[in-house]
Amino acid sequence: MTEIGIIAVGGYNEMGKNMTGVRVDNDIIVLDMGLQLDRVQIHEDVEIDKMHSMDLIKMGAIPDDTVMNEVSGTVKAIVCTHGHLDHIGAIPKLAHRYKAPIIATPYTAELIKHEISDERKFDVGNQVMSLKIGGRYNITPDIQIEFIRMQHSIVDSAFAAIHTPEGVVLYASDFKLDRTPTIGEPPDFQRLKKLGKEGVKAMITESTNSGHSGKTPSERIARDLVRDVLLGTEETESGVIITTFSSHVARINAIIQAAEEMDRIPVLLGRSMERYLSIARDMKYIDFPKNLEIHGSRNAVDKALRRISQDGKKKYLPIVTGHQGEPDSILTRIANGETHFKIDSGDKVIFSANAIPNPMTLANRYALETKLKMAGARIYDNVHVSGHASREDHWELLRMISPEQVVPSHGNMEMHSSYVEMAEDAGYVFGDTVHIMRNGEEMIL
Amino acid sequence: MTEIGIIAVGGYNEMGKNMTGVRVDNDIIVLDMGLQLDRVQIHEDVEIDKMHSMDLIKMGAIPDDTVMNEVSGTVKAIVCTHGHLDHIGAIPKLAHRYKAPIIATPYTAELIKHEISDERKFDVGNQVMSLKIGGRYNITPDIQIEFIRMQHSIVDSAFAAIHTPEGVVLYASDFKLDRTPTIGEPPDFQRLKKLGKEGVKAMITESTNSGHSGKTPSERIARDLVRDVLLGTEETESGVIITTFSSHVARINAIIQAAEEMDRIPVLLGRSMERYLSIARDMKYIDFPKNLEIHGSRNAVDKALRRISQDGKKKYLPIVTGHQGEPDSILTRIANGETHFKIDSGDKVIFSANAIPNPMTLANRYALETKLKMAGARIYDNVHVSGHASREDHWELLRMISPEQVVPSHGNMEMHSSYVEMAEDAGYVFGDTVHIMRNGEEMIL
Amino acid sequence: MTEIGIIAVGGYNEMGKNMTGVRVDNDIIVLDMGLQLDRVQIHEDVEIDKMHSMDLIKMGAIPDDTVMNEVSGTVKAIVCTHGHLDHIGAIPKLAHRYKAPIIATPYTAELIKHEISDERKFDVGNQVMSLKIGGRYNITPDIQIEFIRMQHSIVDSAFAAIHTPEGVVLYASDFKLDRTPTIGEPPDFQRLKKLGKEGVKAMITESTNSGHSGKTPSERIARDLVRDVLLGTEETESGVIITTFSSHVARINAIIQAAEEMDRIPVLLGRSMERYLSIARDMKYIDFPKNLEIHGSRNAVDKALRRISQDGKKKYLPIVTGHQGEPDSILTRIANGETHFKIDSGDKVIFSANAIPNPMTLANRYALETKLKMAGARIYDNVHVSGHASREDHWELLRMISPEQVVPSHGNMEMHSSYVEMAEDAGYVFGDTVHIMRNGEEMIL
Amino acid sequence: MTEIGIIAVGGYNEMGKNMTGVRVDNDIIVLDMGLQLDRVQIHEDVEIDKMHSMDLIKMGAIPDDTVMNEVSGTVKAIVCTHGHLDHIGAIPKLAHRYKAPIIATPYTAELIKHEISDERKFDVGNQVMSLKIGGRYNITPDIQIEFIRMQHSIVDSAFAAIHTPEGVVLYASDFKLDRTPTIGEPPDFQRLKKLGKEGVKAMITESTNSGHSGKTPSERIARDLVRDVLLGTEETESGVIITTFSSHVARINAIIQAAEEMDRIPVLLGRSMERYLSIARDMKYIDFPKNLEIHGSRNAVDKALRRISQDGKKKYLPIVTGHQGEPDSILTRIANGETHFKIDSGDKVIFSANAIPNPMTLANRYALETKLKMAGARIYDNVHVSGHASREDHWELLRMISPEQVVPSHGNMEMHSSYVEMAEDAGYVFGDTVHIMRNGEEMIL
Repeated sequence: MTEIGIIAVGGYNEMGKNMTGVRVDNDIIVLDMGLQLDRVQIHEDVEIDKMHSMDLIKMGAIPDDTVMNEVSGTVKAIVCTHGHLDHIGAIPKLAHRYKAPIIATPYTAELIKHEISDERKFDVGNQVMSLKIGGRYNITPDIQIEFIRMQHSIVDSAFAAIHTPEGVVLYASDFKLDRTPTIGEPPDFQRLKKLGKEGVKAMITESTNSGHSGKTPSERIARDLVRDVLLGTEETESGVIITTFSSHVARINAIIQAAEEMDRIPVLLGRSMERYLSIARDMKYIDFPKNLEIHGSRNAVDKALRRISQDGKKKYLPIVTGHQGEPDSILTRIANGETHFKIDSGDKVIFSANAIPNPMTLANRYALETKLKMAGARIYDNVHVSGHASREDHWELLRMISPEQVVPSHGNMEMHSSYVEMAEDAGYVFGDTVHIMRNGEEMIL
Repeated sequence: MTEIGIIAVGGYNEMGKNMTGVRVDNDIIVLDMGLQLDRVQIHEDVEIDKMHSMDLIKMGAIPDDTVMNEVSGTVKAIVCTHGHLDHIGAIPKLAHRYKAPIIATPYTAELIKHEISDERKFDVGNQVMSLKIGGRYNITPDIQIEFIRMQHSIVDSAFAAIHTPEGVVLYASDFKLDRTPTIGEPPDFQRLKKLGKEGVKAMITESTNSGHSGKTPSERIARDLVRDVLLGTEETESGVIITTFSSHVARINAIIQAAEEMDRIPVLLGRSMERYLSIARDMKYIDFPKNLEIHGSRNAVDKALRRISQDGKKKYLPIVTGHQGEPDSILTRIANGETHFKIDSGDKVIFSANAIPNPMTLANRYALETKLKMAGARIYDNVHVSGHASREDHWELLRMISPEQVVPSHGNMEMHSSYVEMAEDAGYVFGDTVHIMRNGEEMIL
Repeated sequence: MTEIGIIAVGGYNEMGKNMTGVRVDNDIIVLDMGLQLDRVQIHEDVEIDKMHSMDLIKMGAIPDDTVMNEVSGTVKAIVCTHGHLDHIGAIPKLAHRYKAPIIATPYTAELIKHEISDERKFDVGNQVMSLKIGGRYNITPDIQIEFIRMQHSIVDSAFAAIHTPEGVVLYASDFKLDRTPTIGEPPDFQRLKKLGKEGVKAMITESTNSGHSGKTPSERIARDLVRDVLLGTEETESGVIITTFSSHVARINAIIQAAEEMDRIPVLLGRSMERYLSIARDMKYIDFPKNLEIHGSRNAVDKALRRISQDGKKKYLPIVTGHQGEPDSILTRIANGETHFKIDSGDKVIFSANAIPNPMTLANRYALETKLKMAGARIYDNVHVSGHASREDHWELLRMISPEQVVPSHGNMEMHSSYVEMAEDAGYVFGDTVHIMRNGEEMIL
Repeated sequence: MTEIGIIAVGGYNEMGKNMTGVRVDNDIIVLDMGLQLDRVQIHEDVEIDKMHSMDLIKMGAIPDDTVMNEVSGTVKAIVCTHGHLDHIGAIPKLAHRYKAPIIATPYTAELIKHEISDERKFDVGNQVMSLKIGGRYNITPDIQIEFIRMQHSIVDSAFAAIHTPEGVVLYASDFKLDRTPTIGEPPDFQRLKKLGKEGVKAMITESTNSGHSGKTPSERIARDLVRDVLLGTEETESGVIITTFSSHVARINAIIQAAEEMDRIPVLLGRSMERYLSIARDMKYIDFPKNLEIHGSRNAVDKALRRISQDGKKKYLPIVTGHQGEPDSILTRIANGETHFKIDSGDKVIFSANAIPNPMTLANRYALETKLKMAGARIYDNVHVSGHASREDHWELLRMISPEQVVPSHGNMEMHSSYVEMAEDAGYVFGDTVHIMRNGEEMIL
């Protein structure tokens, strides 16, 4: 009989550096290799791209994959189901230690390639393979991977079903059950229900927001909130500037469309804006209107801001980096008065993002907002909905899949506890069918 | 020259028992006479309808209008701009002390009549006059009242412009600047801008949510949140029960429409549901679908719940009282197991309301939710958006009206402080053009 | 070889109804049988003393000991290490189901006898045995129980060491590591260290405040805080009233001593005050000054309050029930104006207690404080330190005992998670040497 | 008749840059010139000592004293009643603009001289005069200043009574009513009561903690908390390090005394530690035990830490800077591993300070604590009591002084609102006898 083990490498003691192993006898599938930015921020003058893995592991910034040495087996594939840095950001530091291809959804694969090409310490030679949603791939004669369509705050997100001789292990992180997404199709409930009926051996799933009551609203609500703020005003001549997650293609699409309705030219500013959006456009996830501008380099950004300033702020809608108050972002540089775009009294600054509840980030946001307010800006905060499932979404998924075993990941023990209590409501038994794992531990199913 | 005074009677030291006087020489217009439910809740076994005004004043439950004795002038009219109890609930206790008609928007007027007819202690003989939105009425040859269309969480809400020989005093409470309301028209921005251009002597406006950053989302967002929760589920066979403010006609309309899409029969249950909705239907604010049921008396409610239970919960969507955990509400009685409607594991209970942040209410909600959860219910909380303007809505209104003087009301000193700080950003000077008043005080303009 | 099992009956999913079993082959020692008051409060008109166990179990108010039916073994003793209701309050409802004596420290034993004599539904015939701190008792030829001196917010608190053929199981709940207690001796660190050196098989310990950073201050700090408030004022003629936990003999002793320094007569008022303090005095835990008065019955209390009122409030220090705003307490009755003791402006009301963070209690406190403030009282809140160990106290105890296995109890999963994280810092491994248990589960060591 | 004006220069819209003027006809007494560190922290790479006043005013870091140009009168004296930077930190930037002596209590005067000598932009030639507590000084023939003994979290704190022909204006900030201080005498209640009886025209007083219920505990409680943590442990061989406010001489004295009891050598480390404590010792506010070490320069600190490390951490108690996580402090450098003092598992780090609730500071503290914990440190947080009066202390002071007019300062409008509500309880009337002022405003009494 085949033995299946789940190896908690990272993201089980904290929300951040996600990495999970699924061992099928001696073959191991690695899911995600993520970065925990928080642990980098607490140090001054850190240049990640030049650092060695062991130093980053010691800092707690990337998963401590030395645990893999103690597991008997060989890594056959590294699988990534979406492109956020807490899932792919450690690939440049860890992937070269495994002779295995990286398999990811197409947009994710493209982002991974860019991450690898930015790396300045290690030579990462792993093959990066693109597997479309709905597609399947045989990793070994016995193990097949299948990507199932899901929704999250980045395009091309999937669940990974690992088909083994003993049944399916479902990797279900990160996700939201959005039935009215603004880009892409709703989650593939038919496939999930079918899997559930056929029987799932184990499910590994994020516990992140399982403590939040109710259901996470659809991205469509976020789109309408953005429109409500941008269009719902009598002060139509004011300067307006908006910031959001560069990787949130659907949100930026909503902003671009609102800009058109406002009769303003959408201007995407910042290196990460340029990267995420250019790739998304090239891969046809998004269409750009003809008048859209996009500027990545500092020089191009500064020139664009000077031109906007001269031409009249009311003709443009700058969409910029800086939603978490990052010190080098465009918005912080504007707030510092380091660009030609001056904030005038009554100008609107819209954060289409939540403030990540981490003291380092809150300090950056505070510094940014204080400077903006002193310059006269009006702040619109949290024009946003989350990309993570809430408690009742988890309830639905769990009942739909009915896995024999369920393991919450992507969170700390408090978040996992919330998941466990929800699972107990659904009839699961702690320590028997629902489990809390800690980084560095393997559980045999 | 005409002297204008603003008399803070109630609602200036707290959020609750609103009452304001505007004195034009010797003629006084009273705006609102509200009830502070919180001060009633802290006492056991209180029957308001049988109590004397002076006892209720001593309890802090209704405005202390004895201050009116110290003001030289005669009340010529009592004006109510919307029908919430914190604005009309003290009329049965206080109005008979003034020989003056009550002037209100039509829906508000109807609710006032019902309040008066429920009164068991006092004989309230004041004439109740209905004035349509957009309409004007001459209270004295010198004083004219005008209702300007506004949006709030109850239909038929207005601002009251009091035209005096010295200019306009604008009573702007309660409101939200909703440009995409689901019932009625958006606020009459044209009229407000015109007033602003002609010059407004003073504005009295709620400070309630002036400390909340950004803009209050449209009721359309709330409607979509309700739909997202009700329709966005694979578990379509579950029992579902929803509760919201009985007076929130637009919200209930959204729920009814969602029930139709779910192919369930909407069933309105509870005395206050029956009152608010029947009046709204009779006055054509809302249309009922043919299959809608409405039951007010305890007997009728219990019969309906028994029938639903027998017929199959999945065919119905009960819309019930109890969003704040009120001990006598339908939802509390269901949670207590006092009706035939039994909660089964997985049944959904949806609160399309915020929990009012008052310890008495939070305790009621806690007791209610604990019982529901113990019975197996899944809770969807705060499927809701507020009916009160946020900081940037206040910013817009203030700049649109540009009153010579502005006085925040409908809040405590902390809430007023937030308003003052916002007004200072807009160029107002504390103690000179923006003021904090306390209950019992008159300010001469 | 002897098999040892730990049976989590109650208090593992919540803070409240504590009950644990330790099974040594077929002999079971039960530790604690507690009541969860919160689950009673959410229901109206509940009379616990007349209720049946099964109804109370269904309400979640007492431990669900039906799990004991599934365990193979016989209960040989019920052991209680201190006298709080969340540890002894379910004895009248559950103890009669076991043919076993109740063994408790002397003060605890006395309180248990009173609980049993109050019971009106069941006939509880179990023998109640008193075992002094430091003492040992052979429950079976193989199993010996030992009480080790500890400190907590009630006198005569102990740890229970269960000596078995396989080694010691230490029951360490509730406690604080107070080296300067105001009544009794500090914890018996010598004995604990010796146990630790000899080797402890397992420790079961409260996780309640393991999430609170640092060390819980000594009760001596609380005594000085009480004195600071009572004596540190220039307004020495005001009425003063103080409330605290009736069972907190050390705290009440501090208050009595401060009353002497203030030259006021200490007057203990309320049934539970009379019970806890009279027993404590009779058992010599506390000395009463000659002028102290104590009144328990409502009649006696009312007479005393009338006399105090007539004689001059400044001569007395009433020490009353009502610290959590309990509706029937003396302090609530005073606030309601139901006694002759009237609150005057500037009178001080001192809460030498924290407000238990439960919505029901917070509502009661809010109602109470609102009424007191409306009458003119000045409120001194939280003149208190906790009786529960904080994180660093747990760290010290864990390192001192070095048990092979440790199980947090007396809390919910979130509290246990905090304990686990602390234990991991000390080298314990989750799922291997530190465990989270759920009500109804047995773990074999 | 003499006209008296109160000029709110800084510290009325925020907690920080305090500066008040009291105008007696054409003579002005300035009270305090403080720095708001928060507004400096949000900018990177700011060197205050080289900056111009106008830039600092624009940043909001020092009071905008340009308002003084609009007041008719001449500044005759600058008076400082204690030595915290939010009261004296702007003297190097602003004092030279006035031809007036600086009058301060002796310890404060010494600190001011050091601040002035550190200044690198301006030449500050004002005379610094030392006036003992209890002493009086004639500023003009008509105006006399008197220092009245008070307690606060720095030695030599006073109230300033300004005697004018129209009566006394009392400047009462910052303070606590500590009857059992550990250094110095309790507040001079006799003098304050006498002043109150004779009649006080106006009182200006901090509102900072007027929203905190109850009474601020005595510094004696803090001393005992420090002793409880340092001495109350079985792990007496661990490394221990403690940090607190360098200016808090009484607290540091308590720590030094505890070190003696622990049989450890107290070692004061850091430039500000050296400055504040050396001055305090030279001025006889504190005695040093013979074995105490004190090292200020980075070089000396590093050498001391190396020696401690070699000699054995258990022999020393380092008392270091860094309680707010300041990036250049000793504690941060230790946490970064930049010194020879290595944190071992189980070492204790004690914060005898609250974390100032400002996002910049919270981020610094978070970064510091995270690094310390990763190295194995055990954290004892908030072993501290405040130096600011709470609500009931304010109540007592207000009733003792009974000023005709009272103006809260040293806070934002929310803090002032709390003060006003307390004053209303004591019979004051908002806008009539108790006032909220805004920076830049003069109020004529």
